[in-house]
Order: sequence, then structure tokens, then C-alpha cells
Amino acid sequence: MEKKTVVVALGGNALLQVGQKGTFEEQMENVYNAVEQLAELVLSGKWRLVITHGNGPQVGNILLQNEAGKHLVPPMPMDVCGAESQGMIGYMIQQAMHNVLARRGRPDIPVATVVTQVLVDKNDPAFQNPTKPVGPFYTKEEALRLKEEKGWHVVEDAGRGWRRVVPSPDPKAIVEKEAIRILVENGAIVIASGGGGIPVIKENGTYRGVEAVIDKDLAGERLAEDVGAHVFLILTDVDRVRLNYRKPNEVALSRMTVSEAKKYLAEGHFAKGSMEPKVKACVRFVEAGGELAIIASLNEATAALEGRAGTQVIRDA
Amino acid sequence: MEKKTVVVALGGNALLQVGQKGTFEEQMENVYNAVEQLAELVLSGKWRLVITHGNGPQVGNILLQNEAGKHLVPPMPMDVCGAESQGMIGYMIQQAMHNVLARRGRPDIPVATVVTQVLVDKNDPAFQNPTKPVGPFYTKEEALRLKEEKGWHVVEDAGRGWRRVVPSPDPKAIVEKEAIRILVENGAIVIASGGGGIPVIKENGTYRGVEAVIDKDLAGERLAEDVGAHVFLILTDVDRVRLNYRKPNEVALSRMTVSEAKKYLAEGHFAKGSMEPKVKACVRFVEAGGELAIIASLNEATAALEGRAGTQVIRDA
Repeated sequence: MEKKTVVVALGGNALLQVGQKGTFEEQMENVYNAVEQLAELVLSGKWRLVITHGNGPQVGNILLQNEAGKHLVPPMPMDVCGAESQGMIGYMIQQAMHNVLARRGRPDIPVATVVTQVLVDKNDPAFQNPTKPVGPFYTKEEALRLKEEKGWHVVEDAGRGWRRVVPSPDPKAIVEKEAIRILVENGAIVIASGGGGIPVIKENGTYRGVEAVIDKDLAGERLAEDVGAHVFLILTDVDRVRLNYRKPNEVALSRMTVSEAKKYLAEGHFAKGSMEPKVKACVRFVEAGGELAIIASLNEATAALEGRAGTQVIRDA
Repeated sequence: MEKKTVVVALGGNALLQVGQKGTFEEQMENVYNAVEQLAELVLSGKWRLVITHGNGPQVGNILLQNEAGKHLVPPMPMDVCGAESQGMIGYMIQQAMHNVLARRGRPDIPVATVVTQVLVDKNDPAFQNPTKPVGPFYTKEEALRLKEEKGWHVVEDAGRGWRRVVPSPDPKAIVEKEAIRILVENGAIVIASGGGGIPVIKENGTYRGVEAVIDKDLAGERLAEDVGAHVFLILTDVDRVRLNYRKPNEVALSRMTVSEAKKYLAEGHFAKGSMEPKVKACVRFVEAGGELAIIASLNEATAALEGRAGTQVIRDA
């Protein structure tokens, strides 16, 4: 049987849970929990696997460290911090994945993280309207000074202080798609496009990093398209997508067509920056020719791929 | 003509020069200088290219940032900091390489950084005798407290304060060699084993990171063996290997056989931690079956491969 390819997007909670401090040991334990699930898919012999992941807490910590050490070390721009977080998280996932596979008799399956740039449009309207808070909190004075000095956009975050906001442009293409595709087709498990990828714009045919954050599910969808995946699976902390969330008429969906999903999106059922981009990413994937997109709980990856859990997004009948 | 494979090891000076602060802009400029040279090799149509690189200044800066931010963010162990530096430096090299190739009409050549673990022996005697200084300087009191609290080895660094020292074990194998090999064989330029790789030991068939630093030239040699490279080229800041360095009878060598190189090593001609591991790495590569190893100046990569510059290490006649 020909194997199918699945791109799995791991949410931030798969790596660092709310309330945790973010030690290496905590993160590695979380990573093992996620990886045990995903190793099952590979060991079933049915799936080629590509993993993408969020990096919010990790790149936030790197930005804090850059700020704390700025009297000693020139702070790196956000694209470089994102690249650092890809190295960090990719290392953890690839080591854990190898170890889980080795314990189950398959130490031979290659696992590799590819540092990944993601192209965004320099004319994306997001650049005119930065909305994504990143990095440390500042006092009003510090924030306004940074605005002056560095041209940052800063906003007050209700009661907690001031923060930098950066654009969240739409991902257009995975720069390293060819390398990733070569690895996947040759049987490797690939970790790519971590944290939504390192955002770059194209100028005269060359790439340059920009200070922005790309939604990891939307970037994961581009990755899934670019590697010709059959299934795009978003793992998160809820079991199913819900309509009328937290209202008396709340409904958990096991399946929706692309047309239904678009109607629900238009009706505003899904939280911005959270469930909305996930549903959008699923719609895009299926519209681009993908077989199936699924949003499911981290603990139900296998069940979701077998149609027993999660919310499927499918083509219109 | 069948292409040959060359593994090029870039010294720390290729990325960050002595006296520079380490801003992104400085590093990127240095990276472009190095990459322009290496792009020539690829564009000649004669070479498949794998790049490895040092990370001393970069991981030093990450360690400083970890220390400075430790009241806010749990510091990461050294293996994770090394992984971060691979993401950072790999990103810079792969972007610069793509851009240089794109300007010369070859934007199609895939360039990718693979996060790389390197296996070391947990019984390596280096673990009993840590010698490699890393990270920030401390006062005597801080250093002795860290020794007590974390079990670190600390030493006084003549007049500049106290520093942590870590082991520098010998690299035994490139964990991600199969993924790297797949990419190289399919025409990608690969950046791998940055900073000597993330050091891991094997326990019950599984890998675990250790706090150590692997010499980047010795790790590059393993990489060259593992990808079946024909040539291993170490680029550094001197034009040739020298006997009787800085003495009246100093001699610059254009070529030495493995036996000659071993004799010179035994006679102590080469500085420990500097030229010595480079010559050792070259000897190993040729003894393991490699065609040719070369130590040359960063500005003479092409000339060195054509036999017009650098010091060649060749098999005994």
C-alpha cells in the first residue's frame, strides 16, 4: 500500500503548558507525550510524517533573554530569534522522536529538522496594522522610547503594561519546500516551518528577514500543500471545533464541508488568533486539493486520522 | 562529469571577527563574504557542497543572554543553546547562499540547514577532565557557588575572572547523517553539524544531550566521512599550515602526507585547540579513505580546491 503523507501541526500546549516555567525538563516531557502519539502513525506503516509546531512561549523567552542581556550582547532581530527557536524545538522533537522509534525497534528511520523560511508579501496589509504582541512588557516610558528609537509599534496590554506588536502577514510559500520534499519522499520524518517559519520578503529575487510572526497553522497549511500532503492535521487542546462556543446552544462538530466552514467563519463562530486561523487553514488545504483536514485534540491523533475523533473538514459533496 | 562532494568547515572568523560586537548586520556581512566563495564552487558545476561552521562567539552570546535573563526565564542547558545557535547561523548561511545563487541565475538550487546531533562516547576521558571555557566570566564567589549548586567545573582565567569549563569529547558519528546524505545526493546544499554539533551520548539505544563542546573540525571530518565526501576543506584565517610557527625557521607547507602530518603532530608543531585539531581532522579524513583534505584561507577556497593555495594533506605515496 502506498503511504500517504500527513502534516501535523502541534500547538503551543504540546510543548509548554500554561503555568509551567519553561524549563528544559518540562518541555522535553511534553514533547515526549506528543511524539509518542505521532510515532504511532509512522509505526503503523501507513503514513509519511511532517511535523510543524508553534513557538510562542519559546521565542517569547528568547526575546526576554535578548532584552535582559542587551547591555552585553547586541539583541538579535525577531527573524533570528525565530530561527533560534526552530533549532531549540526541532532538536527536542527530533531527539524524542528518534528515541521513541528506537525503543520500538525502528532506530533506522531518519528524523531531521529543516530550518525554514516562509515567504510573505511585503505589501501584505498586516504590515500597515501590526496586531500580534510579542516579547517583554515595558513601562509606558520605555515603550514610547522604543517606539521613537526603533520605530516599533507598541500598545497597552490591559493593566499588564506596554508591549511591542508586530505584523502577522499571510504565508505565501515555504522557501525550503524542495529540501523538505526530498527528505519526505525518501522516508525521513521532517520537522519544518517551526513557529510559522522565519518570515522573509522577496526583493529583486532575494530573501530578507522581517520582524513579524506568521500563524503556525496557516504556515503549516502551505507546508502541507508544498509537500503534496494528503492530510493536514492540526492538534490542539480541544477535542472538536464548536459552534456557538460557550453558549447554551453550543454544538461540537465531527465534520464540516468547506462551504459550511466558510459560512461559520463568516458568521464569526471562531475566536480570532485561535480557532479562526485553524479553520481557515483547513479550508485552504482542502480547496487547494488536499483530501482532508482535521482539527483534533493532541491525545487523539490516531483516532482522528481514523475518523473517530476531531472535526474533519472535507470537500463539498 | 560526476560531481564530487566537498565538506567545507568555516571557522568562527568567517562569521564574527575579533573586535566586532556581534550585531546581526556584522555577522550577515561576514556570512556573505564566505558564501560568495562557496557559491563559486557550486556554480562551477564540479561540486556538491556541505557546509559546517563554528559557533563559539554565537553560543557564547546565547549563554550570556541565558545568564542575564535567568531571573525571568529558566536557563537552557548547553546542548539546547547549541541547537539555538545552529538555527541562528544556519538561517543566515542558507539565506545568504540562496540569495547569492539567485543573483547568479540559480535560485532553484535547494539550500537547507539540518539541525544536527553528534554522538560522543559517555566514557570519553574528556568527561573526567573538562578543559573548554564557555559562557560568562564570574567572580570567584559566584563561580564557587555554581560549582556547588550545579556541579560545574570552574577555573580561573588569568586575570579576567572565573569561567565554567566543559568537556570537549571526540565526535563518533553524525546522528542525522542519513537525512544529510539524502539531501546532498539529491542536489541540495546542506548546512549541518554547526558548532561541532549538539553533543549527545547513547544510553540503551536512545540519545541524550550532554553539556560539552565538540571541536567543529573534528565533527566536520565525521560529517565528511558520513556523506562520503571526496574532499574535506577547512577554511580558516591563515593561508597555510606552518612548521616552527613564529620561529626563525618557520616553514609554510603546501602539502604533507598523512605520515608527515602525524610526525609533525607528535613533534608538537601545532597549537592545541587551534591548528592541532585541524591537522588531526585532515589526517583522520584521509586515513578513513577520503581523497584529500585541505587547510586554507577563507579567501582562497576555489584556489585551494584547484591546488593553488592552502596546505593539502594526502595519502602516503
